[in-house]
Amino acid sequence: MTDVSVTTHVFDAAVDLFEVRDDRTEGHTHPAYANMVGPFGGITAATLLRAVERHPDVLGMPLSLTVNFAGPITDGPFDITARPVRTNRTTQHWSLELSQGGEVATTATAVFGLRRPTWSSTEPQAPAVPAPDSLEPTPLPDFIAWARNYEMRYATGVVPEEGSAEVADSTSTLWVRDVPSRPLDFASLTAMCDIFYPRAFLRLGRVLPAGTVSMTTYFHADPETVAAQSDSPVLATARAHRFEQGFFDQSARLWGRDGVLLATSHQIVYFKA
Amino acid sequence: MTDVSVTTHVFDAAVDLFEVRDDRTEGHTHPAYANMVGPFGGITAATLLRAVERHPDVLGMPLSLTVNFAGPITDGPFDITARPVRTNRTTQHWSLELSQGGEVATTATAVFGLRRPTWSSTEPQAPAVPAPDSLEPTPLPDFIAWARNYEMRYATGVVPEEGSAEVADSTSTLWVRDVPSRPLDFASLTAMCDIFYPRAFLRLGRVLPAGTVSMTTYFHADPETVAAQSDSPVLATARAHRFEQGFFDQSARLWGRDGVLLATSHQIVYFKA
Repeated sequence: MTDVSVTTHVFDAAVDLFEVRDDRTEGHTHPAYANMVGPFGGITAATLLRAVERHPDVLGMPLSLTVNFAGPITDGPFDITARPVRTNRTTQHWSLELSQGGEVATTATAVFGLRRPTWSSTEPQAPAVPAPDSLEPTPLPDFIAWARNYEMRYATGVVPEEGSAEVADSTSTLWVRDVPSRPLDFASLTAMCDIFYPRAFLRLGRVLPAGTVSMTTYFHADPETVAAQSDSPVLATARAHRFEQGFFDQSARLWGRDGVLLATSHQIVYFKA
Repeated sequence: MTDVSVTTHVFDAAVDLFEVRDDRTEGHTHPAYANMVGPFGGITAATLLRAVERHPDVLGMPLSLTVNFAGPITDGPFDITARPVRTNRTTQHWSLELSQGGEVATTATAVFGLRRPTWSSTEPQAPAVPAPDSLEPTPLPDFIAWARNYEMRYATGVVPEEGSAEVADSTSTLWVRDVPSRPLDFASLTAMCDIFYPRAFLRLGRVLPAGTVSMTTYFHADPETVAAQSDSPVLATARAHRFEQGFFDQSARLWGRDGVLLATSHQIVYFKA
């Protein structure tokens, strides 16, 4: 692993990996990004993306990433295999597995590639919300360790208090930023795509068992556009479409402070209610 | 392969596979589902789903499927590996590869699992459109072989004619049904999730080079709900979010005739314009 000095941001420490050799590397869960059971899904996704970014044969920038949360990750070291399955002229397809003690805990596929100038257009508009500084930060409950690494300022759909009423709309929209602040990159953007507490909590006004099963992110920005965000808050919004027989889906959009659509992200979530 | 008699629907012939043994099976491209280059992406996705359905160790029903179109598929036979990477109590995670001559053309991951009764809710409403019979079928251009297997009745966003003007909204909404009609199942629903011609054609009013890079589908219905659709048309709607530097994303919803949300599906598409 690279030298984790006192000046390393906790996020970088959490996604840090040994050098990738022969399509293999190793990492370690970080207590600062612990969830109720195992690590925050967003940090696992970011770590897998980082494994591709660190691979000596990587082509270009991330275009899409699918992460499947197959089983629990235990606190401690883990192994990652990151295999460039096929490299074309402008795109490269990756298959990844994260395992512990030989058992697969997470699978993933990623597409990286080159971008070039084309006609461009963004159809939806960023939600019209107050500026970040005019909204109060609302932390998630303190026992959720990973959430302490994010400043979250909700414009709508704040975490319901115990005993809240049911609501008809599962939308949450918030400004999110790393704590301490940190320049945005693809790995931190990936983690932010999983920033939303389960939509079923909001709809039903209470905490219940829930966990992401599979998550797909499409990246719409090149490295320069991502870097231009610097440490400004990102505007993140998500909603569910259908809750049915133990699973619901969720679609999210992540916008830059300047109104640029950085990523769209989708997931299917297990829940019990 | 199973006996393909004259009474077998062309879709079933196209997704037909040899028995799955030791996580391996073989199939063959079908000329009826040919696209401009190689097969229709929807039939490839359906074939991969079918490989899991046919696997002797399969648990439950499809919950999600991600298919990555890594390289062209040549007309002829192909090999599929379908590996149950991890089986939990209620979910099962799959890794798949489709290859030809030892080279990977398509990768996929799937989650299957059991559903059980829970609180349920569907947030969006099906688009308000005329009944299928009151809309004219509009075929895709005749040289696109696979499209001849679908009856498509557009309510909005029909394929632009040569020299059409640019439009501001990439939405297409259509009723779609197999030709000849065929009871809906998860495989045919999977294929229908890829029924939309590239959104960039609609926006720019012209045909241009485009192809799906990665596609993810979330299934929201159990086998009984899918079967209850019988051979009724499915209401399919899709729109793009951002077109940028050679890639755009697309999100789709597929509704049953009875207003039930059967699937949500997302993809990232390469384009040149």
